Amino acid sequence: MVPPKSFTIAALPPAELAPNPEVNVPTEVSSRFAVTASNVIENLTELRALTGDTHGAQRVAWTDTWLKARAWFEGKLGALPYKVERATDAAGNRWVTLRGTTERSLILGSHLDSVPNGGWLDGCLGVVTGLEVLRSLAVFYDGLPPMTIRLVDWADEEGARFGRSLFGSSAFAGTHSIAADRVRTDRDGVTLEDALARCGVAVEGIGAAADERGQAAAYLELHIEQGPVLENMGWPLGVVLGTKGVERHQITFFGQEAHSGSTPMAVRRDALAAAAKLALEIRPIARKHPDAVATMGSVKTFPGIVTAVVGRCEATLDMRDLDAGVLAGMFAEAKAASERFAEEEGCTVEWSRIWSIEPVPFAPVLIGLCEEAIVETAGKAHKLPSGPLHDAAEVARCGIPTVMMFVQSLKGLSHNSLEDTRLEDLEAAVTAFGRLAAKTVVALG
Amino acid sequence: MVPPKSFTIAALPPAELAPNPEVNVPTEVSSRFAVTASNVIENLTELRALTGDTHGAQRVAWTDTWLKARAWFEGKLGALPYKVERATDAAGNRWVTLRGTTERSLILGSHLDSVPNGGWLDGCLGVVTGLEVLRSLAVFYDGLPPMTIRLVDWADEEGARFGRSLFGSSAFAGTHSIAADRVRTDRDGVTLEDALARCGVAVEGIGAAADERGQAAAYLELHIEQGPVLENMGWPLGVVLGTKGVERHQITFFGQEAHSGSTPMAVRRDALAAAAKLALEIRPIARKHPDAVATMGSVKTFPGIVTAVVGRCEATLDMRDLDAGVLAGMFAEAKAASERFAEEEGCTVEWSRIWSIEPVPFAPVLIGLCEEAIVETAGKAHKLPSGPLHDAAEVARCGIPTVMMFVQSLKGLSHNSLEDTRLEDLEAAVTAFGRLAAKTVVALG
Repeated sequence: MVPPKSFTIAALPPAELAPNPEVNVPTEVSSRFAVTASNVIENLTELRALTGDTHGAQRVAWTDTWLKARAWFEGKLGALPYKVERATDAAGNRWVTLRGTTERSLILGSHLDSVPNGGWLDGCLGVVTGLEVLRSLAVFYDGLPPMTIRLVDWADEEGARFGRSLFGSSAFAGTHSIAADRVRTDRDGVTLEDALARCGVAVEGIGAAADERGQAAAYLELHIEQGPVLENMGWPLGVVLGTKGVERHQITFFGQEAHSGSTPMAVRRDALAAAAKLALEIRPIARKHPDAVATMGSVKTFPGIVTAVVGRCEATLDMRDLDAGVLAGMFAEAKAASERFAEEEGCTVEWSRIWSIEPVPFAPVLIGLCEEAIVETAGKAHKLPSGPLHDAAEVARCGIPTVMMFVQSLKGLSHNSLEDTRLEDLEAAVTAFGRLAAKTVVALG
Repeated sequence: MVPPKSFTIAALPPAELAPNPEVNVPTEVSSRFAVTASNVIENLTELRALTGDTHGAQRVAWTDTWLKARAWFEGKLGALPYKVERATDAAGNRWVTLRGTTERSLILGSHLDSVPNGGWLDGCLGVVTGLEVLRSLAVFYDGLPPMTIRLVDWADEEGARFGRSLFGSSAFAGTHSIAADRVRTDRDGVTLEDALARCGVAVEGIGAAADERGQAAAYLELHIEQGPVLENMGWPLGVVLGTKGVERHQITFFGQEAHSGSTPMAVRRDALAAAAKLALEIRPIARKHPDAVATMGSVKTFPGIVTAVVGRCEATLDMRDLDAGVLAGMFAEAKAASERFAEEEGCTVEWSRIWSIEPVPFAPVLIGLCEEAIVETAGKAHKLPSGPLHDAAEVARCGIPTVMMFVQSLKGLSHNSLEDTRLEDLEAAVTAFGRLAAKTVVALG
């Protein structure tokens, strides 16, 4: 492993960064604090080589490659210039703690785990950047910052092996129901319970991860956008306003299977026609709201043969928005539309909720600091909600003020080996995220 | 087996039914010829008990139950009051021939084979009625009708086991390509070639069935409608104008798979949206023409998961009309629409022909006789094209003047055990089909 590079910080003494309850942190404060982006890039490159192959990243949680990534990260901690505490909590989340003058803590975090054949930035960008920010703050404050600084590598954000995402952060937040998940199996039949035990995590005890909340004052997470919005705007960085709520449903239209040759158009009860109308109608429903999305991702036809009018059509609908009222309105509109279309086509329709989660808005005070940090770094900041869920949503749900920063993804691609971000945007992200952390320490410490 | 019942015919002597080249056969001629419907109903009931179970008819071609049905039918022939010739042709079609004063022949036919769990009328109504008509003509003409009368039980109309329908009739018509079909297998892996050999048919020789065409002057087939048109009109019987041509295609829209949460509505390239537009657009395209139909029977979405915008959508399209120009126009309109929708949605589209057949119009002279026979029997006759294909289409394609008569199907159901027709409608069908046969002998014999 390559030893960490030296890094540059401004000469501003710690005293000038004393706690400040006001939100507006002067630009000159955070601009004197710097994190060396080249260290982050070098570490990410090293991790990619160590835990990826030609198909992409292979750091699937609870596998040997994931453990190898964590061991590599452990080695990086050894090079820190000040004493830090290391611990793994009851859910397998890995914590690094730099004690400050108060117990109140700032948490920086993300996840080292990846999907199979994943990208080189998803998750690990936040963890590796968090390490550099922790190091910089330690040096800046000569080992004793005005609030405790913690770095967390959440366990199994992706849920790639057992289908339960946000595992570690939801245990931390107290939202994880063990009973429903312990018997989940991977494709080889290994249970979640056994896979966790192999990594030293006893599934029945994961709720104790909530103890780590302590006196957490703020949670910050840097992540790639995984979508096309920032690239389309030509802006490198964005302030995340929160994670969208999700309404996820299966919708089944029941018509009448009939012979395609002998059944006149006028007497058909075509379940596909009703579903097709809904597939098109969800789009204007979503487009009434600037950030809302609605997706019909799966359509299945029965009997599904070329010579039969569709008697039954099963479709899925996934709707998201940051505003709970907007989301509820979209759901109601889609449902009413489906009933109208069913009636028009002589069909009936049934809805079944697959899953839902409420919107999780982030903390306005931290949104303000994040915007300042981005504007100082890149000149302009876009504010956007996150469609994908993140560990930050779980942290925010348990009442800890939270914000995320997004850096542009090229072509919106993620969860595959083509995932990438321009080098200059990664550098801007490290700089801006460092500024956000410094501002947060000043504002809340 | 129950011996055939006696049957009633009018006392008109054969001489009065001498050949008549004019199409308009006086009503009084055919009205003096009668076929006893109760014999037909009794035979159909007997066949149902012998070759069906609680799930429906099980006379799948080339199986033991089909052979049992044919052996039962053979027994019925033994009770005919005049000498007939019996033969099985090179494709397994079974022929019964009553020689007349000329070699010119009238062929009556349909099929004893059924789909698995099929109905009690599909196919066998035509064969069993044909037997009664043959018997009645034999008695009426005292064993020597003015033209040869033949009854054919076509082999494997349904194609239920090997997926190749109209097997025997297409061999007769010379349209069957053996090379492409001999290696077809059933779900147990038995090849078509082996299954046929077991029934005494050598697959490489089936083309010799064309020898049976001889001096065929007309082909008549009675069949259930298998659709809802006659029931919706409240009419028992219909004259079939021909079988519709079919254009059957697979259409694939290519868009861009994308995350349902992070991809704004405005930048999506949703392959499902393009397919949904086409699913709705084919309906007005078909409705411009009175008898045209267009069906999207199968839609498949890829990756087909609730959290992804559809990147690829595969749909099937089946279009039918009796007019070749109409059908070609519908195909062109649908293709143009698909290209327009693909462009609107940022997608591309590819078409691949699965199968097609040209429309097969029936013979006007026989359509006229059929209409007369129905009007005399039921007071009114509807004229309609057939959406489903029938053996009659193959016979017509090889140049033999052909017509079909449809009897009403309840609820348009067929190919399942619920298939049924009112008893009085079956009786009317037998009577009208007998009249049609008598008129044809007079007109063409």
